[in-house]
Amino acid sequence: MIDFQSILEDIADEVRPLCADGRVADYIPMLACVPRDRFAMSVATLDGQVYSVGDSEENFSIQSISKVYTLTLALKGIGDELWERVGREPSGSAFNSLVQLESERGIPRNPLINAGAHVVADVLLGLSADPRSDLLEFVRRRANDPSVYHDKEVALSENLTGFRNRALANFLKSFDNLTHPVDDVLDFYFYQCSLAMSCADLARGFSFLANRGVCPWTHENVLTPSQAKRIGALMLTCGTYDAAGDFAYAVGIPAKSGVGGGIVGIIPNRLAIAVWSPGLNASGNSLAGTAALELFTTKTGLSVF
Amino acid sequence: MIDFQSILEDIADEVRPLCADGRVADYIPMLACVPRDRFAMSVATLDGQVYSVGDSEENFSIQSISKVYTLTLALKGIGDELWERVGREPSGSAFNSLVQLESERGIPRNPLINAGAHVVADVLLGLSADPRSDLLEFVRRRANDPSVYHDKEVALSENLTGFRNRALANFLKSFDNLTHPVDDVLDFYFYQCSLAMSCADLARGFSFLANRGVCPWTHENVLTPSQAKRIGALMLTCGTYDAAGDFAYAVGIPAKSGVGGGIVGIIPNRLAIAVWSPGLNASGNSLAGTAALELFTTKTGLSVF
Amino acid sequence: MIDFQSILEDIADEVRPLCADGRVADYIPMLACVPRDRFAMSVATLDGQVYSVGDSEENFSIQSISKVYTLTLALKGIGDELWERVGREPSGSAFNSLVQLESERGIPRNPLINAGAHVVADVLLGLSADPRSDLLEFVRRRANDPSVYHDKEVALSENLTGFRNRALANFLKSFDNLTHPVDDVLDFYFYQCSLAMSCADLARGFSFLANRGVCPWTHENVLTPSQAKRIGALMLTCGTYDAAGDFAYAVGIPAKSGVGGGIVGIIPNRLAIAVWSPGLNASGNSLAGTAALELFTTKTGLSVF
Amino acid sequence: MIDFQSILEDIADEVRPLCADGRVADYIPMLACVPRDRFAMSVATLDGQVYSVGDSEENFSIQSISKVYTLTLALKGIGDELWERVGREPSGSAFNSLVQLESERGIPRNPLINAGAHVVADVLLGLSADPRSDLLEFVRRRANDPSVYHDKEVALSENLTGFRNRALANFLKSFDNLTHPVDDVLDFYFYQCSLAMSCADLARGFSFLANRGVCPWTHENVLTPSQAKRIGALMLTCGTYDAAGDFAYAVGIPAKSGVGGGIVGIIPNRLAIAVWSPGLNASGNSLAGTAALELFTTKTGLSVF
Repeated sequence: MIDFQSILEDIADEVRPLCADGRVADYIPMLACVPRDRFAMSVATLDGQVYSVGDSEENFSIQSISKVYTLTLALKGIGDELWERVGREPSGSAFNSLVQLESERGIPRNPLINAGAHVVADVLLGLSADPRSDLLEFVRRRANDPSVYHDKEVALSENLTGFRNRALANFLKSFDNLTHPVDDVLDFYFYQCSLAMSCADLARGFSFLANRGVCPWTHENVLTPSQAKRIGALMLTCGTYDAAGDFAYAVGIPAKSGVGGGIVGIIPNRLAIAVWSPGLNASGNSLAGTAALELFTTKTGLSVF
Repeated sequence: MIDFQSILEDIADEVRPLCADGRVADYIPMLACVPRDRFAMSVATLDGQVYSVGDSEENFSIQSISKVYTLTLALKGIGDELWERVGREPSGSAFNSLVQLESERGIPRNPLINAGAHVVADVLLGLSADPRSDLLEFVRRRANDPSVYHDKEVALSENLTGFRNRALANFLKSFDNLTHPVDDVLDFYFYQCSLAMSCADLARGFSFLANRGVCPWTHENVLTPSQAKRIGALMLTCGTYDAAGDFAYAVGIPAKSGVGGGIVGIIPNRLAIAVWSPGLNASGNSLAGTAALELFTTKTGLSVF
Repeated sequence: MIDFQSILEDIADEVRPLCADGRVADYIPMLACVPRDRFAMSVATLDGQVYSVGDSEENFSIQSISKVYTLTLALKGIGDELWERVGREPSGSAFNSLVQLESERGIPRNPLINAGAHVVADVLLGLSADPRSDLLEFVRRRANDPSVYHDKEVALSENLTGFRNRALANFLKSFDNLTHPVDDVLDFYFYQCSLAMSCADLARGFSFLANRGVCPWTHENVLTPSQAKRIGALMLTCGTYDAAGDFAYAVGIPAKSGVGGGIVGIIPNRLAIAVWSPGLNASGNSLAGTAALELFTTKTGLSVF
Repeated sequence: MIDFQSILEDIADEVRPLCADGRVADYIPMLACVPRDRFAMSVATLDGQVYSVGDSEENFSIQSISKVYTLTLALKGIGDELWERVGREPSGSAFNSLVQLESERGIPRNPLINAGAHVVADVLLGLSADPRSDLLEFVRRRANDPSVYHDKEVALSENLTGFRNRALANFLKSFDNLTHPVDDVLDFYFYQCSLAMSCADLARGFSFLANRGVCPWTHENVLTPSQAKRIGALMLTCGTYDAAGDFAYAVGIPAKSGVGGGIVGIIPNRLAIAVWSPGLNASGNSLAGTAALELFTTKTGLSVF
């Protein structure tokens, strides 16, 4: 038996000094306000236990982590049809790069980079009369926490400064790879990015992916085992921006990060784990968070490799 | 208990018809001569058992699979210093692309693309007075088979037609990322690519990577557990050319392919598995081999995700 | 003395059959309606004579030709400061490519590609309270024709389908290379592109560039001789999309083309020449128009080389 | 009548202080030895007069200027067939870039970048039993000077360090765009680059291009008028590396530069002009030489625009 609680506490002690080294995302003004000294880490095992350390009940902006949720809903909705509009390969370039999109004629490399998430958002707009409410409801159910909310100020802040995303979405539209108006797609995209939830929420909220697609406590079949496995593969190869290889090398688990400083990972058949520390490294992943996850896999011997 | 033998036989029956669909690599003239109807598959479990089907004792050219062996030797030799000269990220472009190399100033994205393997070869040239013999001996020991040999005709054929590799190596040299003469590096590189071994050899020969770095039968510590885990991560993110994401998505295990039609994969703590079918798909991976591995992970429920 | 009138008539006879080979721009719906059989050619010599053949008084959409007029106004307005925000090099890629813009961090290669024209438009928005009227008035004065007008339907058509331009402008904005709101810049840009004037207007309207910056009939100093010379250099190296080299090779004069099928060129100290035929070649330049200009330089022996 | 002699002397006085600012090419060791204080400038008018200032009789390595001579011989030899293997567009990237070559499948953008010159060299190897002697003889005749020689030490120095050129040539070969062995092509290429001649030689030696293809003193038809005009167009759009646009903008004449510090330009129907100063600017063009040519066109009012 692994004593997760004491391992989390040891890790917190070790990595807290690193929190000061990271750089808080400042291209989204509202994110720049988050104090850099926040740190939280939570583990949710498949028997329903949650172990936490630090500010684990404080909500933060999940940003790109939301891409896993929308991908889940798109795969549930249209299945493998999705892959006609977006690839499954690592991008080999920055998460918001337009270069690849041009050479590959408007097909984003994967659904976890921004352009891919725009296509996924476009899919969700076609699947529901109220995609925002559906997404919020879905995320709350996964996290088993009705306090997950949408932070309007962050969404507005992103929308006002999101020129790169607006460039990407218009570029996709020029290749006919968006069916809805660009503004609708982006509004939904900024909505999903500005969902706010806690570290404990995220650990619970990704448990279904560690549990072959089944929610451990409601036993709901969110995805098929095969779909859950495949999302894990996408997270591992594409989940941490242009540092996915490095992250797999150092940490060794499927994970998705966000510029809000959150990272959530899964160890199939064992647990889901989330960490939060707003300071980012040069790749845009939480600096102390990455270190914490590396310590976790080293100390527990758990990884997929 | 999984009945590997009957699973392999079922898979062989299912995928044999696909052998005709692939395209044998023809840019290396000697490889173009290999009959497309060959098929073999072998599983080596960590208790030392080997299960096989088809032409599993016939030697074939392992080509890029050799990159995992040379990477192993380089990591043993100089450890993490290697990462100053080569990255750990998926390339996002073809295995022999020069574009990335130019924009990243001569640092190959990872050691499993050609340019990265040239750098690894350059490292090995500096570690031994007789790097060829050392490599051959190492591969034979890993495979537990002295019949592994070097196919001079294939090496010559590659050397005479290897203009793209020669371009890459000179390009690396222009960035001062090769310390030995270009011709020496390429001679060694073509040597490693033209090693010939069987499917059963490969399954045995990758067992140490599935076994935390320890050879299951000699108990030799080939790599540390951490190094073995990390090579697994590299194989998963970078091992199957520009289809690594797709392969991870569909198959879900760390693997390395070669244009000779071989693919070898590992399931940590369980087994190593090799497959051979010379016909390639558009990404340069064995077409029937990829299908066979996908069937294997589906039928057994084994994958890292 | 060259008999321009009979040369123009000979050329018209020769190239008319080519009009059917070109492809009318269809990405802007309103342009797709223009009949492909239109052809016109006009020469304005510096003594004020205008020689014409074909539909030389019919107005058409000048599209990218307008970039020379806005560049002229920007150079008049802020001089060499302009070059801090836009380069002077041929692009080596498509006129609406985003690749270069990314690698060169938001500095367009030259003012005659779309992104460069957006920057120029942004400059003009800062120079005038009513930049549209100022531009229209300027173009009318240059053409000595008050019938030059703005085609609202074309502008609307471009605006509704201009996703690539919208992508470019947002991309520029993300690099802080636009000071005005993206929509304002694009509205002005679509305005300038949808100016409609005739072949004879264009020949007269570019005479000041052939005349060292001085309007031949009003003797107004529009630009300094050095500025006029430099705009000629930009037209020659960058004026005909990604075929600028080919065009210089075959035709040998500074020129600017538009997807409406117009091309206007200058022979310094001699004349300005305009041609119109809506069918485009693969590079986006008027097919019959390019042939007509090549014939003109061959028959007259006039070129800058 | 322009007093060329006193203009050259004035220019020399003005630009000599700039000689210290440039950086001598050091990637070719033998070139790094050339003293940076050398300066020469020569004008050859079509009546056979040569005006010079400075070290105008000292031979230096012409490097890339030789590409115009080999292009001339290739056009004489195979005419427009050449354009099936090399383009005529500015490259939009560095003279030794491989990126473009990959995306355009082995067709160099123009004959004045390195890859294009390799293709031209390959053509010349097929046209003559002794292409070196033929080239040397041709250059001597054009310069009217038997003292033009081949500098073996420079050629050797380039060959030993020419990894980037070796990469380019192998890359071309991998696309089947070289018919001769890579080493033969490169040997010839390094031969042409290491021709040594003086500023006065170069001014005389490019006179035929300013004179519609006819050697002014022997009246030999070296090229047709149309071919001469077209080489001028190539020089203007592609002759000064990635600064061709800037050079055209500032200087306004067709020119070709070399990393040995030479630049030679032509003003059609007037003169050829050469300048030499070994210190280079960031684009690889002679720094003081560029300034001198800009002064020349300003002071004389001569340019093609």
